[in-house]
Amino acid sequence: MNREELIRSLVVKNQTKILLVVLDGLGGIPYEEGKTELEVAYTPNLDELAASSSCGLAIPVLPGITPGSGPAHLSLFGYDPIRYQIGRGILEALGLGMEVRPGDVAVRGNFATLRDGKIVDRRAGRIPSEENRKLIEMLSSKIKEIDGVKIILSPGREHRFAMILRGDGLGDAVSDADPQKEGLPPKMPQPLSPSGAKTAAVAEKFIKMATEILKDQPRANTVLLRGFSSHPEIPHMQEIFKLNPVAIATYPMYRGLAKLVGMEVAQTGESIEEEIKTLEKVWNDYDFFYLHIKKTDSYGEDGKFREKVKVVEEFDGYVPRLLNLKPDVMVVTGDHSTPSKLKSHSWHPVPYLLHSPYTFRDGIREFSEISCRKGSLGFFYSVDGMALMLANALRLKKFGA
Amino acid sequence: MNREELIRSLVVKNQTKILLVVLDGLGGIPYEEGKTELEVAYTPNLDELAASSSCGLAIPVLPGITPGSGPAHLSLFGYDPIRYQIGRGILEALGLGMEVRPGDVAVRGNFATLRDGKIVDRRAGRIPSEENRKLIEMLSSKIKEIDGVKIILSPGREHRFAMILRGDGLGDAVSDADPQKEGLPPKMPQPLSPSGAKTAAVAEKFIKMATEILKDQPRANTVLLRGFSSHPEIPHMQEIFKLNPVAIATYPMYRGLAKLVGMEVAQTGESIEEEIKTLEKVWNDYDFFYLHIKKTDSYGEDGKFREKVKVVEEFDGYVPRLLNLKPDVMVVTGDHSTPSKLKSHSWHPVPYLLHSPYTFRDGIREFSEISCRKGSLGFFYSVDGMALMLANALRLKKFGA
Repeated sequence: MNREELIRSLVVKNQTKILLVVLDGLGGIPYEEGKTELEVAYTPNLDELAASSSCGLAIPVLPGITPGSGPAHLSLFGYDPIRYQIGRGILEALGLGMEVRPGDVAVRGNFATLRDGKIVDRRAGRIPSEENRKLIEMLSSKIKEIDGVKIILSPGREHRFAMILRGDGLGDAVSDADPQKEGLPPKMPQPLSPSGAKTAAVAEKFIKMATEILKDQPRANTVLLRGFSSHPEIPHMQEIFKLNPVAIATYPMYRGLAKLVGMEVAQTGESIEEEIKTLEKVWNDYDFFYLHIKKTDSYGEDGKFREKVKVVEEFDGYVPRLLNLKPDVMVVTGDHSTPSKLKSHSWHPVPYLLHSPYTFRDGIREFSEISCRKGSLGFFYSVDGMALMLANALRLKKFGA
Repeated sequence: MNREELIRSLVVKNQTKILLVVLDGLGGIPYEEGKTELEVAYTPNLDELAASSSCGLAIPVLPGITPGSGPAHLSLFGYDPIRYQIGRGILEALGLGMEVRPGDVAVRGNFATLRDGKIVDRRAGRIPSEENRKLIEMLSSKIKEIDGVKIILSPGREHRFAMILRGDGLGDAVSDADPQKEGLPPKMPQPLSPSGAKTAAVAEKFIKMATEILKDQPRANTVLLRGFSSHPEIPHMQEIFKLNPVAIATYPMYRGLAKLVGMEVAQTGESIEEEIKTLEKVWNDYDFFYLHIKKTDSYGEDGKFREKVKVVEEFDGYVPRLLNLKPDVMVVTGDHSTPSKLKSHSWHPVPYLLHSPYTFRDGIREFSEISCRKGSLGFFYSVDGMALMLANALRLKKFGA
């Protein structure tokens, strides 16, 4: 019996409400003034909350492993991130706000430049997003279906797009249609097992049709396809955890990830203020609330230490409003660290604060990496956070007698 | 997908250098003055380094499990020590400096005393090592090959020796040729599966030939054989971690262990000074450096608290020279604890210090067991140390998107 089966066997429903706040890329490492973003940020509300909560440092996947947003979030939602892997095509499609259904295969696309039978630019000179949008409109109007498989396209930034294949008998065991290096001839997708045969055939026809349609374009006159991936088979949170969950997130990828695990997705605006309002509005309708704040990660990725600090401070101002909702369990954490110093996601464990009537009171004075290290949750794997939330919501029966 | 497969799928090469210093048996428990060896040792350099590093306590195998040198080192090298087990015969042979090749079967031997058809002393009165050496010379000159299998012998201390069988079709599924108790007749090796048949037959012939050759010896007039073991199938560090590793170690067993995982072994002398010189000499030729200091363990095993303290202090004096090499990542730890109080290896977690530009700065004042407990690496399994080293060397790609 693994962790998931054990929890599934013990879960009960009750009237409690659990609020999981994810400040994306929250964790940092010492940088300006030798301090982390959290250490520099003025966060009186989070600090006070930390003092009366259980704190710890959460390891998103394994020590030393830097997670992408997919595995980092699955872990927070209680899913083993190594067992449940979300393909790159699916994440790309989710990130562009596309609806992904069971049975679909999603693919990442590039516009590219073909000359004299060779791919001379794998990114088509990074064409402007606006040009991309028009080309995708053109392709979408001319290619709607191939061999009974629906073709759904969505433009991304610059040369990137995503494609969803929807139809029967599609598998994702298909090789990339990408020579990887410039100066080589185009590569057609190949089935890697019989289950990928139909997908590969449809994708090859798509490439040929698109190349014909684009033939007069100066730069974006062909397409490359990578990361064929099926909709992952993930049991829903309703099924495993008996929760009725809702997601409040401004970015499409996080709304998409939430849908994959069965969350409903609330309509919300772009600001934290609007997200909090949405939360207050839907508070009576659900029992698990995933509130996602994106900008901490964005500024971390850009190396903008001060701006990341400001987002944390802005969020801090809303903590009293969150507490006013009287969640039975409230967690504040990140999905992974994004230290401004590294300008990227990192492997460092993430500060984790769990507030409920049943926690130790760690007496921590400050919500930060180093303080959380001293907390009563210690070091733990993010994936165990869900059992901790459920336990603190008194939603887990005793194991054994 | 397990930890090893995950890391293998994420590893990239770059120009960074990783230095892993293993002070054998480093960890201790309170003994003289109620302090551990590390607490008593005057280590200004290690203490300063600890203050600007991430520290933690590493669990070699599992809590409560006391490891031998084999599993303890495999763990530090990033190999699951329960999955990869090195047989006793192989370790004995490596410890005696014998070359062990894939396909070989290695065995531990005892000289023993046979009287009236019974083994009356399983250790042949612990004959002097010098007598052992002469007997092994005699056997080696008379038994070079049996049924096409090469017989390679090496004397150990007192009554102990090691034997390597080299030839085709040898397996290690062979029972010990040892009655275990005195007063019982000799026992011949038996195949435990068909794969061990040839080995058992050759070993039986060897015992009979040796007994004939030794028949006029007063004490050492027969041999017992135990711990038949094949060369373990361990993927090399080059393959899993894309590293180009070298070992600097004074004792044969550690050089042998390093070879098993694919390290090159540098020629070096007996002292720490000579080892450091060797490290400096080979610094440009590799990207992973395993530096092994033996005497901490030896004195721990002998219960010599003060002498163990002195070895730590001696090593501390070389820390500035190590830092002068400017390793991108430097780890100082032990393979296991060898508390002088216990005079043996123990199960206690081991102080672990990781220095890189990307660690938290724990602000720990002293490199010791209790201080490391408060560090930002927390408690972790030694086997996860390799991913931490690789991550801090920026040699691991992001997992998932």
